[in-house]
Amino acid sequence: MKKIAIFPGSFDPITKGHVSVIKRAIPLFDEIIVSIGINSAKNYMFPLEKRRDWIENVFANEPKVTVQTYSGLTVDFCKKVNANYILRGLRTAADFEFEKEIAHVNKMLTDGIETMFLLTEPEFAPISSSIVREVFRYGGDISSLVPPQVKINSENK
Amino acid sequence: MKKIAIFPGSFDPITKGHVSVIKRAIPLFDEIIVSIGINSAKNYMFPLEKRRDWIENVFANEPKVTVQTYSGLTVDFCKKVNANYILRGLRTAADFEFEKEIAHVNKMLTDGIETMFLLTEPEFAPISSSIVREVFRYGGDISSLVPPQVKINSENK
Amino acid sequence: MKKIAIFPGSFDPITKGHVSVIKRAIPLFDEIIVSIGINSAKNYMFPLEKRRDWIENVFANEPKVTVQTYSGLTVDFCKKVNANYILRGLRTAADFEFEKEIAHVNKMLTDGIETMFLLTEPEFAPISSSIVREVFRYGGDISSLVPPQVKINSENK
Amino acid sequence: MKKIAIFPGSFDPITKGHVSVIKRAIPLFDEIIVSIGINSAKNYMFPLEKRRDWIENVFANEPKVTVQTYSGLTVDFCKKVNANYILRGLRTAADFEFEKEIAHVNKMLTDGIETMFLLTEPEFAPISSSIVREVFRYGGDISSLVPPQVKINSENK
Amino acid sequence: MKKIAIFPGSFDPITKGHVSVIKRAIPLFDEIIVSIGINSAKNYMFPLEKRRDWIENVFANEPKVTVQTYSGLTVDFCKKVNANYILRGLRTAADFEFEKEIAHVNKMLTDGIETMFLLTEPEFAPISSSIVREVFRYGGDISSLVPPQVKINSENK
Amino acid sequence: MKKIAIFPGSFDPITKGHVSVIKRAIPLFDEIIVSIGINSAKNYMFPLEKRRDWIENVFANEPKVTVQTYSGLTVDFCKKVNANYILRGLRTAADFEFEKEIAHVNKMLTDGIETMFLLTEPEFAPISSSIVREVFRYGGDISSLVPPQVKINSENK
Repeated sequence: MKKIAIFPGSFDPITKGHVSVIKRAIPLFDEIIVSIGINSAKNYMFPLEKRRDWIENVFANEPKVTVQTYSGLTVDFCKKVNANYILRGLRTAADFEFEKEIAHVNKMLTDGIETMFLLTEPEFAPISSSIVREVFRYGGDISSLVPPQVKINSENK
Repeated sequence: MKKIAIFPGSFDPITKGHVSVIKRAIPLFDEIIVSIGINSAKNYMFPLEKRRDWIENVFANEPKVTVQTYSGLTVDFCKKVNANYILRGLRTAADFEFEKEIAHVNKMLTDGIETMFLLTEPEFAPISSSIVREVFRYGGDISSLVPPQVKINSENK
Repeated sequence: MKKIAIFPGSFDPITKGHVSVIKRAIPLFDEIIVSIGINSAKNYMFPLEKRRDWIENVFANEPKVTVQTYSGLTVDFCKKVNANYILRGLRTAADFEFEKEIAHVNKMLTDGIETMFLLTEPEFAPISSSIVREVFRYGGDISSLVPPQVKINSENK
Repeated sequence: MKKIAIFPGSFDPITKGHVSVIKRAIPLFDEIIVSIGINSAKNYMFPLEKRRDWIENVFANEPKVTVQTYSGLTVDFCKKVNANYILRGLRTAADFEFEKEIAHVNKMLTDGIETMFLLTEPEFAPISSSIVREVFRYGGDISSLVPPQVKINSENK
Repeated sequence: MKKIAIFPGSFDPITKGHVSVIKRAIPLFDEIIVSIGINSAKNYMFPLEKRRDWIENVFANEPKVTVQTYSGLTVDFCKKVNANYILRGLRTAADFEFEKEIAHVNKMLTDGIETMFLLTEPEFAPISSSIVREVFRYGGDISSLVPPQVKINSENK
Repeated sequence: MKKIAIFPGSFDPITKGHVSVIKRAIPLFDEIIVSIGINSAKNYMFPLEKRRDWIENVFANEPKVTVQTYSGLTVDFCKKVNANYILRGLRTAADFEFEKEIAHVNKMLTDGIETMFLLTEPEFAPISSSIVREVFRYGGDISSLVPPQVKINSENK
């Protein structure tokens, strides 16, 4: 059976921490689908098209990594793309508590999908997408927080 | 003095975890008032009428358990209904930190009301009302997360 | 059915935090047995006799509170004394994680015994028996940390 | 070099916990600037003018403490006012996790600004501005939670 | 490159939680080496021979799972057996904090070894080897906490 | 009044994390006394003489930093050396919970001594003295974890 993992998130925008987790997981899987969840009730800072392009550019040379979008339940998307694993990065204890809840409820909903965790590297642990947005909103320089492929034109501000 | 506890919350909707905590607390009290807090600034997923009906149906055979709604401060409602205890379930360490703050501020506001905690059973610990709403919003099957009395017509979606 | 709770611990020595939790729980139960666990593998700072006397003196005027010693499993002691509740105080999130594990394993071992938690008052939250022993060991004055009934002669040092 | 710290926040409203942290930090610094961050996307309960007056009245007799407002990144404001320290109070472990992320990202953005923490006193640890607003919104008496200089006319309700 | 993981621990004794984590990880790896660390400074409750036999019996029908013992640094053992992954189960937030430190220091010592985490199932989360020993020491029945292959003769007591 | 801080610990051995915290605190104080606590009940890995020499060598060019040893209560030592501040580094949320208890009990014992916290840098956060000793005990290379002044001859092993 092919080992397929999804790496779900909003990626608003993708951070250096996300990139590090995905890259380290590549040897474990046959395919990793970076899966951009679309929630119509949520306001995103960056348009979906850009968020998707940035991720595709980051992993342009990684044939095992693809990008898809989905709406609906994460476990339903797993079944649709035949993924048996959900890959997540853990930054903090608060992250862990939150991820644990999600993972356990996912298991109640659909058997056979396992959530697997890697640690965010210590130097990237403070970086979350929401903190990147906060810095960006106030005119700060986010280049140390995101991969170089995240290119933001002035009209995004 | 009659031992009256309130079990406050939004119950949007009531979960299996709530039910388990209330049932295990019944022997300790003369009356447990499941108290639905109404906050006009908040958007609820399910109408108050339904949330109330579901709880009443769950505890239809438990004469010690009643349901009331309230607005305003929880401690003021306690005084109104002569409750000397606030009953809460604890799921996670994050829950605990949050509940501790509320409980201590309640004590600063009104002396003589004690908050009492039971643990959510391990198999129900991942279930919160907000995670139930998330599953429901995306069309997932919530029947493993809520008591069978929570019946949702398609028009709720 | 009589509502009997045990409040288990080493009480080496009893602290102001312990006293506050027990006193606030008295109205909820018909009897609270302060239960000194004896573990032959553990070194205690104060002799069992003293630890017991101190607790008895603290609750001399509380007819519902008694003191017993036990060895073996806490849940076995509960069955022996017909206690259906274990009462515990919660000071910190770390406390909570620890108590949750114990409580859940107790439930796996013996059904029908419920663990009930009260919060330690904020001003007593930093006080643990082990910190009291640390202060005492270095010659500090522990009178602000323990009830006045804890009287320590110089020969204890 | 003059030792200047900023104490950033929304102060909606200032609490007894804030006041205690600032007062205990005064001996360490030559100047402490209580810095009210203005975020146009956020809704505040109390008008900026009041929040500022309250703080100024609290520290009317402390010549080292001044009040300023700022928008934009906190580290940019530090550079503008020549502050080399950010002062923060820590109430809970959740606070700590959050503050740690902010502090580390601030360091990535601007070198040479150090975040320094004092503990909130145990009796004030449960008090946050958001819990004060919650109590106020429901008509509770907040006088035990804020300094006496916080005077709220009925038209604020 | 063969994907080899070690699952290090004392296994004093192996618990149902350990078994569940290992079994769920089997599809991800070509080989999982359950690695019993030997620390001459530590006192174990059960002899190494038994701890090893129990694990071998549990996984008798899993050709991918083997058992080895090691002393010295875990990362050095990884290199010796060509393992590029360390597999760990996460039960609680406290677990997470501890594992995070170990994993990050391992990375400082030896590059190229990744620690991968699975969650302990909620119903097994309260079970640690130390709590099993505690129950056993006091004469409790540990059969609900460990796999059936853990057979303890009375002379172990 | 001279601003004197102590930085208490066992320093068995001093780590890169300790050094970073002390160096960043130097501008805040007139004097920082690295204070090696001596506890006769504790077994240290490295002899006091070495632990002291290492620290003195690290700070040989920092005239504000001195090294002293003490036994007894930390707050009593503060009074003896006229220190009004205790400086501590915070690595994790567990650290924070522990330090909070100590700091609050110190305040109960002696008024007027304030504990001040700096964050350990993210890249040093996983390093504790106990993890250094663990690596050393198993023959690992600790040079990435401690300052270069920590020189260990083979006879320490």
